[in-house]
Amino acid sequence: MPKPPPPPLTIGVDIGGTHVRLLLVADDGQVVNRAHLPAIAGDPTEVVRPVSVQVNRWRGAYPHIFRLGVACAGWVDADGRRVHQSPNLGWHDVRLADLLETLCRLPVRVENDVNAALLGEHAAGAALGQRNCVAVFLGTGVGGGVITDGHLMRGAKGAAAEVGHHVLDPNGPLCTCGRHGCWEAYSGGAGMVNRAREAIAAGEKSSLASLPAVTTAEIMAAATAGDALAKRIWGEACRRSIQGMVNLAVLFDPEVMVVGGGVVAANPTLLACIKDGMDQEPPFAGLTDVHLVPAALGDDAAALGVALTTGV
Amino acid sequence: MPKPPPPPLTIGVDIGGTHVRLLLVADDGQVVNRAHLPAIAGDPTEVVRPVSVQVNRWRGAYPHIFRLGVACAGWVDADGRRVHQSPNLGWHDVRLADLLETLCRLPVRVENDVNAALLGEHAAGAALGQRNCVAVFLGTGVGGGVITDGHLMRGAKGAAAEVGHHVLDPNGPLCTCGRHGCWEAYSGGAGMVNRAREAIAAGEKSSLASLPAVTTAEIMAAATAGDALAKRIWGEACRRSIQGMVNLAVLFDPEVMVVGGGVVAANPTLLACIKDGMDQEPPFAGLTDVHLVPAALGDDAAALGVALTTGV
Repeated sequence: MPKPPPPPLTIGVDIGGTHVRLLLVADDGQVVNRAHLPAIAGDPTEVVRPVSVQVNRWRGAYPHIFRLGVACAGWVDADGRRVHQSPNLGWHDVRLADLLETLCRLPVRVENDVNAALLGEHAAGAALGQRNCVAVFLGTGVGGGVITDGHLMRGAKGAAAEVGHHVLDPNGPLCTCGRHGCWEAYSGGAGMVNRAREAIAAGEKSSLASLPAVTTAEIMAAATAGDALAKRIWGEACRRSIQGMVNLAVLFDPEVMVVGGGVVAANPTLLACIKDGMDQEPPFAGLTDVHLVPAALGDDAAALGVALTTGV
Repeated sequence: MPKPPPPPLTIGVDIGGTHVRLLLVADDGQVVNRAHLPAIAGDPTEVVRPVSVQVNRWRGAYPHIFRLGVACAGWVDADGRRVHQSPNLGWHDVRLADLLETLCRLPVRVENDVNAALLGEHAAGAALGQRNCVAVFLGTGVGGGVITDGHLMRGAKGAAAEVGHHVLDPNGPLCTCGRHGCWEAYSGGAGMVNRAREAIAAGEKSSLASLPAVTTAEIMAAATAGDALAKRIWGEACRRSIQGMVNLAVLFDPEVMVVGGGVVAANPTLLACIKDGMDQEPPFAGLTDVHLVPAALGDDAAALGVALTTGV
C-alpha cells in the first residue's frame, strides 16, 4: 500500500509594528513550526523580504505548504489584497498580497490583525464553534472584530468593527481619531496614559508624578496601591468598557464575547469587573445569555487565524 | 403553443399594533394587489384569523401563490418561526409561523418588522443592490437593521441591530429599557415627548404647556416657531442622531445608510441635519463615502420585504 500523503499545511504570518511572527499550521490547528523575525518598520519590500525567505525555507522542508495568510495591523481592503493604510507600519496603499505572491509563489490573503485574531479564536480558541461572536482587544488601543452567522464582518471597505472608535460620550476626552469620547480614549492604554499626564501637568497629586514615564502597567499598579488619580482613570476605563461591551451586545446579539489584549492580560480582574457590570444591567434581548470569555490563544491568535481561514 | 404559466406570487403581511397590511407581490417586486385589515391587539389566533381569510381569498383568485412572509413588531427568533416577545401586540412566545401555516397551508417565515423594512429597501428600494447597508427608522422609538455582505444580520437570538438601545451617554435621560442615554431616549418621539412633559412639569415656560397633550409633531412645529424648550429637545434629538449614525458607520462600514420613519417623514430637514453633521466629522475609514439616503418604500417596506425575501 502506498504511504498516505503528508497533511496539507498553511503558513500564517502576523506583521505588526513590534513583531513579525510566522506559524506553520496543519488543518487541524496544530502548530508544526514557528519563527519570529525582528520587526522592520518602513519600506514594504524590506519588511516582506525576510518573511519570504522564511516561507521559502519552510517550503524546502515541507513540500505540502499550499497557501499563505497574512495578518497586518491597519486598514486592509475587504478583498484581502491591499493594505490601504497602516499607521503602525507607516504604510499607505501597499499591495501586500501581490508582493508576497511574487516572492513566495503561493496564493496569499491579507487580513486586518484584529479580525485575524478573532478568526483564530473562532477556529481554534475561545469562540470555537459559535455562529455569532464579538471580540474586543484592550491594549494600547481598543480593537475588535465581529462574526455574524458564521461570517467575518468586513464591511464595504474592510473597515467594519472599529469598536474602539464608537463614541460613548461626545463630551469625553479627545481621541487620536480627532473625535471626543471614543471607547479607546477611555479604555485604551495610550488614552489612560494621556489622561494621567494631563492631570499631573495640571498639578494633581499622584504617585505617578514621580515616575520618569507613566505606563499603563504603572497606572494599574498605582490604582491597586490606592493612588486616587490612578484609581479614577482605571475605574473610568472599566466603567466605559462595560458601556462599550453592552452596546456591542445590543447591536450584535452574540453568543460569545471574547475579551483579550495586553491590558486584560496584565490585569485579569478587568474581565471580572466587566462581567459584573454587564450582569447588573437591566435585562435586554441581546444581553441575555451572552458568555464573556477571555481570549485563549494569546499572541498566536492572528497568525493562527489567517493560517486556518485563508482558503475560506 | 401552450399559454405560459402565470408568474409565481408571494404574500407579505405586516402585523403592527396599529395596522395589518397585506401585499400580493410578484417576484419582480410589482404589487399585484393589496389589503388593509383593522388592527386587533390581543389573542394571537384572533389577530391571525382575518389574515388567513384574506390570504385564502387571494389563493382562490390567484392560483400561483406559493409562500407567505410575515413582518411582526417585536423580538422574532432567528429561525423565523416564533415571536418571542411583542410589547406592541401584547404577545409572548407566539408560534406565529405554525399558526399561519395551519390556517393557510403555505410555507411561512416571520421576520421582525424593522428587519423586514430593511429587506424591502434592499430588495426594491433605497438600498437596492448594496452589499452592506444600515437602516435606521426614527419614529416613536428608534429601530434599525443591518445587512452585511449581502446577508441580514439577525444575531444569535434574532435580537441584533437594536440600534436605538445603544447608549450615547450613560448620564442621559432614562429610556423605556431601564438604562440611561440610549439613542431612543433622545431621538425617539416618545422620548422627546417625555422630556417636554418633564420640563413643563418642572415649570419651564413653553408654548407646548398650553396644549392638552404634547406630540412629536407639536414639538417639531414649536421648534420651527422658535419655542426655546422645543428647540432644545429637537436640537438634541438631531445631534444625538448624528452621534448614533456615526457610531453605526464606524461599526458596520456600510455603502449606504437608509433613514426613514415617522419623525423623518414629518420633518425631512432632519435628514439634511444628520448629513451635515456626518460630513463635519473628522475623516475616518467607515465614514468615508457613506451614502445617506431617505427610505423609499414608506409604509409598504416591511410587507414588501418579507414578500420578496421569504424564500431566501
